[in-house]
Amino acid sequence: MSSTIRSPYLLFLGDAPDQLAAKTADGIAHWRPEGCVGQLRLEGCQADVGLKDLTLEEGMEAGARTLVIGVANRGGRFSQLWLEILGRALEMGYDLAAGLHNRLVDVPVLAELAEKNGRQLWDVRHPTQELEVANGKPRSGKRLLTVGSDCSVGKMYTTLALEHEMHQRDLKADFRATGQTGILITGSGISVDAVVADFISGAVEWLSPDNEPEHWDLIEGQGSLFHASFAGVSMGLLHGAQADALVLCHEPTRKHMRGLPDYPLPDLKVCMDRNLEAARLTNPEARFTGIAVNTAKLPEDEAGAYLERLEDRFGLPAVDPVRHGVGNLVDRLEENF
Amino acid sequence: MSSTIRSPYLLFLGDAPDQLAAKTADGIAHWRPEGCVGQLRLEGCQADVGLKDLTLEEGMEAGARTLVIGVANRGGRFSQLWLEILGRALEMGYDLAAGLHNRLVDVPVLAELAEKNGRQLWDVRHPTQELEVANGKPRSGKRLLTVGSDCSVGKMYTTLALEHEMHQRDLKADFRATGQTGILITGSGISVDAVVADFISGAVEWLSPDNEPEHWDLIEGQGSLFHASFAGVSMGLLHGAQADALVLCHEPTRKHMRGLPDYPLPDLKVCMDRNLEAARLTNPEARFTGIAVNTAKLPEDEAGAYLERLEDRFGLPAVDPVRHGVGNLVDRLEENF
Repeated sequence: MSSTIRSPYLLFLGDAPDQLAAKTADGIAHWRPEGCVGQLRLEGCQADVGLKDLTLEEGMEAGARTLVIGVANRGGRFSQLWLEILGRALEMGYDLAAGLHNRLVDVPVLAELAEKNGRQLWDVRHPTQELEVANGKPRSGKRLLTVGSDCSVGKMYTTLALEHEMHQRDLKADFRATGQTGILITGSGISVDAVVADFISGAVEWLSPDNEPEHWDLIEGQGSLFHASFAGVSMGLLHGAQADALVLCHEPTRKHMRGLPDYPLPDLKVCMDRNLEAARLTNPEARFTGIAVNTAKLPEDEAGAYLERLEDRFGLPAVDPVRHGVGNLVDRLEENF
Repeated sequence: MSSTIRSPYLLFLGDAPDQLAAKTADGIAHWRPEGCVGQLRLEGCQADVGLKDLTLEEGMEAGARTLVIGVANRGGRFSQLWLEILGRALEMGYDLAAGLHNRLVDVPVLAELAEKNGRQLWDVRHPTQELEVANGKPRSGKRLLTVGSDCSVGKMYTTLALEHEMHQRDLKADFRATGQTGILITGSGISVDAVVADFISGAVEWLSPDNEPEHWDLIEGQGSLFHASFAGVSMGLLHGAQADALVLCHEPTRKHMRGLPDYPLPDLKVCMDRNLEAARLTNPEARFTGIAVNTAKLPEDEAGAYLERLEDRFGLPAVDPVRHGVGNLVDRLEENF
């Protein structure tokens, strides 16, 4: 059994009712275009991730090894149409990968066909690794962790953008995925919010082991220390990461914590202080090296003014990774380390 | 399927090599003597929890409904001798309950006998509840949570002692178990360190739902916000509990965090501040109402002086629940609420 999803991928968009339903495929096509041979769309599909439309046969000819389900299944069930295509893919030699709530391995027909054809089923939302409790021992190499004022404020995007920029500069860096979309993009990782609670920090230690002194593991953060539903995951991530560098991710127009209408966002200073304190429990040298802000909902001039105010207040580079890239963040990282 | 382990219990001590191996049975016999008809010991058993020695037949005659495995199985496996006795118990009408790492339901012969005889197997370390993500909505009733400077500093003992003292005073209170020993003692609860990470806070919300205004849920804490392996669990517990009252538990002679030789204990002031801040995210009225110290390793006079210093420093009652009981803690609770 391989420990990495085999690439290149053919991206299955199914009968996605709109572009949002295919956001996983969108992320993969955006961040790993070289790892995708094309997209497979069914009749009525309303999404398009800008790749060539291929059949299963054409995908196989183009070298695809894994059919990645890059779309949510409606109502959490697999339609007969989907099952026929997924089954045929297994018979043709594709592995299957998905980040859905329900598992491919729990669908008898798929489990049987995978077994019969010696193919792998990847349910990346459901960790199967044997994990150990975190031991807190210092590790070699460098690590950066993105942390959030809230959920869904751009932690995965920022972390992937950092990897891209660092590779442009010939710096050694690896994105370490902690959620299903990140795992499908990069081919490996672990869904830390799906591990047994005792092993959150241990999972992150496993994900970012000893490495060369100059190598950066760029660890995708999850949740927020100030999110009343998920802060345990964020706390365990902070301790397991032993981060040298932290980057705060934030969305300035949000009115309340995601999914919790009665919970306001934390003050950014308090948020950073608490994240830093938790990070320093396992790495006393941890520090913030930048702020990444999703300013999509602000006009250009307001966005610029907002970022300037953050830079003045915290003495750190503040950027919108989509509008400006993360060059300033990597500059600071190179200055500091 | 019942949601509570049926009592009374017959406690199975097996062939325990020493008293420590039977510490789960010890806890049950200490806190729920009225819920136990006796103990069942095999030849060579070196433990004794002070109950009458009974056979399976005598236990059944005395009214026992569940055979509780109150001893660790050596090397994590069930010996043939154990299996014969556990199997016979199922055939006689006992349910089985255990808090072991490996599950009773995974032993085919036990699973079959339970099915055939309509009996229940309780693996209390492995939650099976359908949980939801925490919603953070305020709940009625009052809640107290024990928090720790470290793991294994007396949180379960303190919480059970509080329940006992409050019942003596005819106050409405229920111990809410979050670990396997607590669950076996009280017959219900959830092992929060064994739930999927996303559901830690949700599990605690499930465990301590809306209740009468004067009723106290006394929630057993786990781990410590300052433990590099398990803090995620502690953070999720704090948010899910919506505690009105916090009690700090501490062991003053410990040289380092449990299992982590390079990690010192936190300063108690910082420890309390951070626990309070996290608790206030979901209940802005949260406050500390006392400190419970395990002073077993200090001479009587040193213990007294230590507790006095804590009382002066924090303005809170500080007691050793074993040496002095928790009367002072309940006094303060009654004054404050």
